[in-house]
Amino acid sequence: MKSWVESANLPGCDFPLENLPYGVFSHAGSRRIGVAIGDQVLDLRGCADGGVPKALSPELTAACSQDTLNSLMALGGGAWSPLRRDLTAILNSNAEARIQQKVKQHLIPMREVEMQLPAQIGDYTDFYASIHHATRVGKLFRPDNPLLPNYKYVPIGYHGRASSMVVSGTDVRRPSGQTKPATTAEPVFSPSRSVDYELEIGIFVGPGNALGKPVPIAEAEEHIFGLCLVNDWSARDIQSWEYQPLGPFLAKSFATTISPWVVTLDALKPYRVAAAERSKEDPSLLSYLAQGDSLAAVDVTVEVFLQSQHMRERGIGAVRLSRGNLRDLYWSVAQLLTHHASNGCNLRPGDLLATGTISGPEEQSEGCLLEMKHRSSPITLPAGETRTFLQDGDEVTLRAYCERPGLPRIGFGECVGRILPALAT
Amino acid sequence: MKSWVESANLPGCDFPLENLPYGVFSHAGSRRIGVAIGDQVLDLRGCADGGVPKALSPELTAACSQDTLNSLMALGGGAWSPLRRDLTAILNSNAEARIQQKVKQHLIPMREVEMQLPAQIGDYTDFYASIHHATRVGKLFRPDNPLLPNYKYVPIGYHGRASSMVVSGTDVRRPSGQTKPATTAEPVFSPSRSVDYELEIGIFVGPGNALGKPVPIAEAEEHIFGLCLVNDWSARDIQSWEYQPLGPFLAKSFATTISPWVVTLDALKPYRVAAAERSKEDPSLLSYLAQGDSLAAVDVTVEVFLQSQHMRERGIGAVRLSRGNLRDLYWSVAQLLTHHASNGCNLRPGDLLATGTISGPEEQSEGCLLEMKHRSSPITLPAGETRTFLQDGDEVTLRAYCERPGLPRIGFGECVGRILPALAT
Repeated sequence: MKSWVESANLPGCDFPLENLPYGVFSHAGSRRIGVAIGDQVLDLRGCADGGVPKALSPELTAACSQDTLNSLMALGGGAWSPLRRDLTAILNSNAEARIQQKVKQHLIPMREVEMQLPAQIGDYTDFYASIHHATRVGKLFRPDNPLLPNYKYVPIGYHGRASSMVVSGTDVRRPSGQTKPATTAEPVFSPSRSVDYELEIGIFVGPGNALGKPVPIAEAEEHIFGLCLVNDWSARDIQSWEYQPLGPFLAKSFATTISPWVVTLDALKPYRVAAAERSKEDPSLLSYLAQGDSLAAVDVTVEVFLQSQHMRERGIGAVRLSRGNLRDLYWSVAQLLTHHASNGCNLRPGDLLATGTISGPEEQSEGCLLEMKHRSSPITLPAGETRTFLQDGDEVTLRAYCERPGLPRIGFGECVGRILPALAT
Repeated sequence: MKSWVESANLPGCDFPLENLPYGVFSHAGSRRIGVAIGDQVLDLRGCADGGVPKALSPELTAACSQDTLNSLMALGGGAWSPLRRDLTAILNSNAEARIQQKVKQHLIPMREVEMQLPAQIGDYTDFYASIHHATRVGKLFRPDNPLLPNYKYVPIGYHGRASSMVVSGTDVRRPSGQTKPATTAEPVFSPSRSVDYELEIGIFVGPGNALGKPVPIAEAEEHIFGLCLVNDWSARDIQSWEYQPLGPFLAKSFATTISPWVVTLDALKPYRVAAAERSKEDPSLLSYLAQGDSLAAVDVTVEVFLQSQHMRERGIGAVRLSRGNLRDLYWSVAQLLTHHASNGCNLRPGDLLATGTISGPEEQSEGCLLEMKHRSSPITLPAGETRTFLQDGDEVTLRAYCERPGLPRIGFGECVGRILPALAT
C-alpha cells in the first residue's frame, strides 16, 4: 500500500501506511494524540474536530481528543480496528483528493513537534524473559549453575517505578547511591560507577481486568494495545549492594526511558512467528501458561547504538553495540500478561509491562553492557575509547523494526538518552 | 482542648480535636474530602462552599474541593498549618455559637459515609525497616546469620503495586499462584496455602521532588503529609518460589489494604521521641542518612486483631495477635524518604511509602504470622482453633494509636480486610 504522504513510501521509513503507531505530542502550546505517517504526525484531535475520518463513534472521538492514550487504550479491539481501517483509508494514495485536502490540514512535520509520554503509566512492571540474558548474568555469580530453579516455570518479574519514566530524548542524570566497593570495608555514598542500559520492549496494557479476576491466556492479547522500546537504565554497583533480599530498587528508579510511538499488535500481525522452540529437557508449562497460539512470538529486531561525547565532537556517528530479536524470549507477551494477572492483580489501561533485557544466544546480541563481560575482547569504540559501563556524555539509542522481503517495514522509531554527570554529593 | 462535637471528647476516641485526620468519603452520590472529628465527618467541600473557615486561601479552597487529597498534599506545610489552625478553631468548644451552627450543617455521621482511598497513589514503595522483623524472618533461612550484610547500612525497600491498593473494608480474594511444595518435584498452580498479613505504617508524600533532585535529610519531613495503616497482604508460598532473584511480585500484588484516615505529622507532634538507640557494634550512618533531629521517631502503638468465621458465628470478638510500636524501627520515616530520593527518584504528592512489617523484640510483638513460627506455642484462637496462616473467612483488623498520660489520644482508626475463598482454578 502507498500513502499520499510521500515520505511514508520511502525505503527504510519506520512509519509507512501499514504501521500507524500512536503517540502524544505537543505543538503550539497544546498536547494531543497523533499518528506517525512518514515524517509527519497526523493530529487526531484536529481530525476528530474536523470530521475526518467521517464515521468515528462518539466514544472514539472523545478518546482521540484526550491528551494521553489511556482512554483509547481502554476501548479495546472493537474500537481500535475501525479507527485503524479509517486512518488507513484516509491516508491511502487512493483516497479522494477532497479527503486528502481535508486531512492535509491536520498533518504536522515530525520535526516541529515535541513528543511526550504516550500514556499516564499507572504501574510499571519489568520482567526477566530472556533466558540468554538470565543465563549470562547468572554465570557472573554462579558459573556452574547460572539459571535459578524457578526460571523455566515462572516468568520472573518485579514492580518498577512509574514516576521516573521519561520519554525518549530526556537526559538522564547519573545517580548517586550506596555501593560497597570490594576495596573498602564499609559502603560509600557516591556517584554510580557502573551505569548500564537495558534493551527492552514495553507492552502497553489496553482494557484492564478487575481486581481478583485473572486473564486466561487465550484472551491475553485482547488486553494489549501495543509495543514500544524501553531502556531500563541500571546502576549495577548500587544494584549489587541493595538487591538482597527484596530485589532492585534505587538501581533502577532514577530513570527509565521509553520511545514515544506505540506500535499496535494489528500492525505487527504480518510478523507473528512461532515461539522459540524449547529444548527437550525443558519442563512442560503449567496449564495457565500453555498458549495454543502457534504464532505466539513477534519477529522484531532490536538494536543498541552508542555515541560518546568524544565521537560526537569528532562527527563520528553512533556505533551499534548489539542486535537481538524479541522472538528469542523464553516467554511470550501473552504469557507475561497472563502470569501478571494470575493472582488477581488488576492491570489498568496504560500500565506498562517490559520484557526485561532482550539478548540472543550469540556474541553481539547482549542487551546490556553487564553481559558483555563475557565477550572475548573489550568493547572498543571507533575512536579508540573502551567501555565497561557508560561514561558521562554517552548517548544510547535503541531501535527496533520488523523487516522481511515482500513485507512493509514496521519501525518503532528511536529511544534515546544521554548520561549527564552526577550532581555533587 | 474540647470540641463542641461531643463524641470527640469521649475517652478512647480516635479522633479528638487534636487529631483531625484527612480522608475521602462518598455520600449522597458524590466523593469529597473530609476531616474526622469524633464520630462525625466534616465535609470540607461543603465548608469551603459555605465560607467556613472564613479565611481559606483560593488554593486551599480549590484543594479542599477535590475528590482526592493529592492537591492538598502538594501544597505543603505553608498551607496545611493555617488549615489545621482554622479547623481547630471552628470545631473548638469555645467557637462562637453562630460558627458552630454554620459548621454543623457540614457534619455527616461517620456511619453514613463510605470511605475511599484517600489519594490517587502514583507509586507504592514498601520498606523493610524493622530490624526485629528482618532478623526473625532471616532466622528462618539463615539461623546463624539472619541479617544480610547490607541491612544496617541501607534502608532496604522495593517497588510495590499501586493498582491493587484498596481501602479498609474491602474483601480480599485468596490468590492463586505458582508454588513449589517440598513434597512435589514440580511446581503447582493452586490457591495459596499461606496467606499472611503484614502490620505496617504508610507514609503519604506531600510536596514532591523533581526527577534528579535528592531530598536532604533535614528537609525530608517537609515532604511528608501524614501516616496511615497498611496491611501488606502476602502469600508466603508464592513469595518463596518467585522471589529469586528480583524480589516479591505476585505474592504481594493481589491486594494491599490501607486505612482511610491520614493522620498528619502535626497531629503526631506531641508523640515524637528519640530514635531507638543503636547498639555499640552498629556501624555509623552514611552522612546522607545522619539525622540531626533528636526526635526522629514517633511513638505509635500498632496492633493486629483476628476474628475467624467460626468466632464471628459464635459472637466471639476479635482477639489481639500482637502489639508493636513504630518507634522500634531501625530507620526513621525521614531516613526512608531521603534514601528513596537519594538517587534522584522523584516522589509525587500522594505516593505512598510503607515501613514494612513492624515488629518488636519480644514475643507477642511480631507483625506477621510468618514470624510467629518462633513462638514457643502455636497460635490458638479463643474457640480452640489454631492458625499458622490465614483461613478463608478470617478478618484481620489493624489498629494504631498514640496514648500517654496527660496527652490526648491520637488514633488511626482501623484497617480491616476479610479473606474470601480463592476462585476455582
